[in-house]
Amino acid sequence: MRVLSSTQGSWNEAELLTWLVKSYPPARPGEGIGDDCALLPCGDLLLALTTDAVVEDVHFRRQWLSWAEVGSRAVRGCLSDLAAVCAQPEGVFLSVGLPAGLSAEDVKAFVEGAAATAAEFSAQLKGGDTVASSVFFADVVAVGRVTGQPWLRSGGREGDLLAVTGQIGGPAAAVALLEAGRTQDCSLWPVLRERFVSPTPRIREALSLAELDIHAAIDLSDGLMLDASRLAAASSLRAVVEAPHLPVLDGVEEAARLLGTDPLIFVAAGGEEYELLLAIPPNELSSAEAHLARLGCRLTVIGHLEAGTGAELVSADGQPVHLASLGWVHGGQS
Amino acid sequence: MRVLSSTQGSWNEAELLTWLVKSYPPARPGEGIGDDCALLPCGDLLLALTTDAVVEDVHFRRQWLSWAEVGSRAVRGCLSDLAAVCAQPEGVFLSVGLPAGLSAEDVKAFVEGAAATAAEFSAQLKGGDTVASSVFFADVVAVGRVTGQPWLRSGGREGDLLAVTGQIGGPAAAVALLEAGRTQDCSLWPVLRERFVSPTPRIREALSLAELDIHAAIDLSDGLMLDASRLAAASSLRAVVEAPHLPVLDGVEEAARLLGTDPLIFVAAGGEEYELLLAIPPNELSSAEAHLARLGCRLTVIGHLEAGTGAELVSADGQPVHLASLGWVHGGQS
Repeated sequence: MRVLSSTQGSWNEAELLTWLVKSYPPARPGEGIGDDCALLPCGDLLLALTTDAVVEDVHFRRQWLSWAEVGSRAVRGCLSDLAAVCAQPEGVFLSVGLPAGLSAEDVKAFVEGAAATAAEFSAQLKGGDTVASSVFFADVVAVGRVTGQPWLRSGGREGDLLAVTGQIGGPAAAVALLEAGRTQDCSLWPVLRERFVSPTPRIREALSLAELDIHAAIDLSDGLMLDASRLAAASSLRAVVEAPHLPVLDGVEEAARLLGTDPLIFVAAGGEEYELLLAIPPNELSSAEAHLARLGCRLTVIGHLEAGTGAELVSADGQPVHLASLGWVHGGQS
Repeated sequence: MRVLSSTQGSWNEAELLTWLVKSYPPARPGEGIGDDCALLPCGDLLLALTTDAVVEDVHFRRQWLSWAEVGSRAVRGCLSDLAAVCAQPEGVFLSVGLPAGLSAEDVKAFVEGAAATAAEFSAQLKGGDTVASSVFFADVVAVGRVTGQPWLRSGGREGDLLAVTGQIGGPAAAVALLEAGRTQDCSLWPVLRERFVSPTPRIREALSLAELDIHAAIDLSDGLMLDASRLAAASSLRAVVEAPHLPVLDGVEEAARLLGTDPLIFVAAGGEEYELLLAIPPNELSSAEAHLARLGCRLTVIGHLEAGTGAELVSADGQPVHLASLGWVHGGQS
């Protein structure tokens, strides 16, 4: 998602995606457009492949991050797509557009940051492309191996619990503080910055759940409610998300207070979380919690799937909460 | 290669590539950085994966091509890397950076052009990413299957003939005419434009040679002499290329005359040819010629590999020809 610009231009990403899925339908679910990864059967094996592009001044600003952090963060976001299908990363490719003003040291720092993060998750830098460009961009391709059953968005069933890993709201709160120039006013800024700069692709967590009966999964890249609606739509169900149960990262409420914003905007609509949203049958919940607890990762039930369409956020008394009424505009914070 | 800008910036692509290959060496040749594709062993199979990025005003100008042609051409360039390792294309992924000014119709035309060309070579559009960007870019990822032995750059042997498919010089001559605004003065402009807009990735040609003993291959993307030097370096040999034997496309000499340039610059240094340069043992030449002739593709012997280093272009009397002395500057035409 674009974390910065709220201008849409004359093309619309959601509409374009709908057209793409309709025009180029995959042979089977998960083997084409509209899932987190494409799954490529390869003999007895199943490879997962995903691409994820970041663009300067759309996904980050140069003064916010070191070039090593830009590289690391781009790889983290891409590997998160492999986590969403429960795949073990193997290789990473970088295609980078380099503006003339960038020094060789900057470029090397970017590559080293990317390669070091890939190695942390057992993936090797295997290739890519470098081109001149008026703006810095990096398209990261990640290839992984699915050892068990791949998780798809479309496997959710009526009555499944929706559960999210970790704590959310941090990346959007961090970006809002950066854009407002208020980072030094926030006592928990280091926590928020860390979540924005170094989100954890939930590879280990996903693989630890590979033996369980997880019905569906998606990684949170474009905002909880939008991603929940995608999982629900792929499963032909309706997602109900309970606002009071959302696991809010420390510092998000302070940031919202400083900026005069409702923290729910950061938590329910903020992009680039890279946490996993899972559809879990109720009888698998305690096992899933136990597996993740061993990795120091919490799992929070935030809602469920039911018959219907769409995704609804509800308050403690069961009333719908409309993010737009809280001041949220698509593509950024108001 | 950048076909337009001759500004280098403070990073240098060749130096960067040298650093990358040294810093992130592949486990085996062809399995990492520095070949046309990365080869991924996958059970009994071998997948080839490559990425190729194009950027507006670096690789093309908007007024030169329709958006469908931009998409088609980007896929052609990427598939050419699969031809260089003798792989059958299977899937294509598009990561596109879209400026706000682009209409939904433009974007769809781009995708349709890309998907139609992929389908022409039996590859399916399988996924990708769309992001906002201040400049249009597209990173194409192609995945293919190697059925026989993959061709590598490093397999050349002393005494091998160097042979090139098709006819060369067209794309660089076309760009030079476009940049000079002289297209209407060139009687063979349609031929040159076609070669620039719709280069043929030599997939069918490569696959038709799969049973032969081709020692090494590279696709011509950055200029014949630069690519010949890469094949030679990977094979620890020296490439000798004979200028009088180069198969020059019709119209290249006329374009050079109009522009007051030596046609050898277009032919020996022009990028984005997407023809194949093959290192062939002399006893396989006639078979290779016969296989390609059946596909309507000529194969021209232009030189050989010998002990030594580097790549040298020589004239009819065996004297070295220096492109710089003809007015060639790296990154464009003078």
